[in-house]
Amino acid sequence: MLTFYYTPDTIALATHIALETVGAEYRAVRVDFSINGQRSAAYLKINPKGRVPALVTDHGILTETPAMLLYICQSFPEANLAPLNDAFAQAQINSFNSYLCSTVHVAHAHRMRGYRWVDASNSNAIAAMQSHAPRSVGECFALMECEMFKGPWVMGVQYTISDMYLFTLAQWCEADGVDISQYPKIAQHRKVMSGIAAVKRAISAESAAM
Amino acid sequence: MLTFYYTPDTIALATHIALETVGAEYRAVRVDFSINGQRSAAYLKINPKGRVPALVTDHGILTETPAMLLYICQSFPEANLAPLNDAFAQAQINSFNSYLCSTVHVAHAHRMRGYRWVDASNSNAIAAMQSHAPRSVGECFALMECEMFKGPWVMGVQYTISDMYLFTLAQWCEADGVDISQYPKIAQHRKVMSGIAAVKRAISAESAAM
Repeated sequence: MLTFYYTPDTIALATHIALETVGAEYRAVRVDFSINGQRSAAYLKINPKGRVPALVTDHGILTETPAMLLYICQSFPEANLAPLNDAFAQAQINSFNSYLCSTVHVAHAHRMRGYRWVDASNSNAIAAMQSHAPRSVGECFALMECEMFKGPWVMGVQYTISDMYLFTLAQWCEADGVDISQYPKIAQHRKVMSGIAAVKRAISAESAAM
Repeated sequence: MLTFYYTPDTIALATHIALETVGAEYRAVRVDFSINGQRSAAYLKINPKGRVPALVTDHGILTETPAMLLYICQSFPEANLAPLNDAFAQAQINSFNSYLCSTVHVAHAHRMRGYRWVDASNSNAIAAMQSHAPRSVGECFALMECEMFKGPWVMGVQYTISDMYLFTLAQWCEADGVDISQYPKIAQHRKVMSGIAAVKRAISAESAAM
């Protein structure tokens, strides 16, 4: 049995979609950012980083989206969400997911969480990061559109965990000041993803819990 | 045959150490940042992101350190640099490596590459990031020391790719204004790593090419 700690409108959605897709049995627990639940003593025992998501498994606790996504694939191989028997193809997924976590998500985070990288009292620097986010996030989407996205899915013909991860970040384009219509392949991908039953279930569950 | 594109004093060292450790046959090609070689038309064909490292394999090109490290493990299983037959143990490595790429490396990058996240002409904001880096990088090392590092290696008794990756980031502590002696387990790890033959070979090769 798995326990999944998440907060709506965060990167947790990618893992939530993966859990719904494979048909995992899991308990979803909402961490309430409005009362700083991610920094509560109880939650810090689960994830000392004070972030979501976290996945409690029978073997121990996992954090970090790329690791959780691949673990779900490996635990439910029949769902075929990654080419587990092809090291290079799997490495391409790992590469794409690393780019999402180290570059795309980080560019996005400068819009709302600039205090991570400058003194929290420096409102000018934080505002400078915020106003630059549309450009840096947009550059990431342009690169993915032109150089990485194979189509119709991120990795080509196989629907994989990278699709769930990209979709989650693409959800934030409007709030980030990025016009997704400039990236037609990714815009179409987001539209198709929005119609998938497991994606709808994950989004509905998160909305209902709010 | 592999071709490895790297620049000294970058995160490429982690992959360089892995290649030396497994005894891979590879050609190392230095990308010269001083002439902006990472943005040259020839290099952008290899890695459109304009970053190092990149690994050209018989199957295609890989980028992103976590992906390259795991691919090297899987291509040279006899080197036993990751618990490839244990999905949860492998996920712990993926989690640690994701933290390094998305949080530790990013905190470090704000010291020298603040122009990625604000307008390049905003020298005040860039200086604010630079002066905050010792604190944000230090917080990462404190968390790794207290919560993640198992000892004697990152993952406990098995020497893995996470050791090479942590070592590479720990090399930068002094330049980042972080006193590594505050993190005794990681300081000792760095010392032990420095004495490993494959680590020495990778560092020497990079120094000799400069």
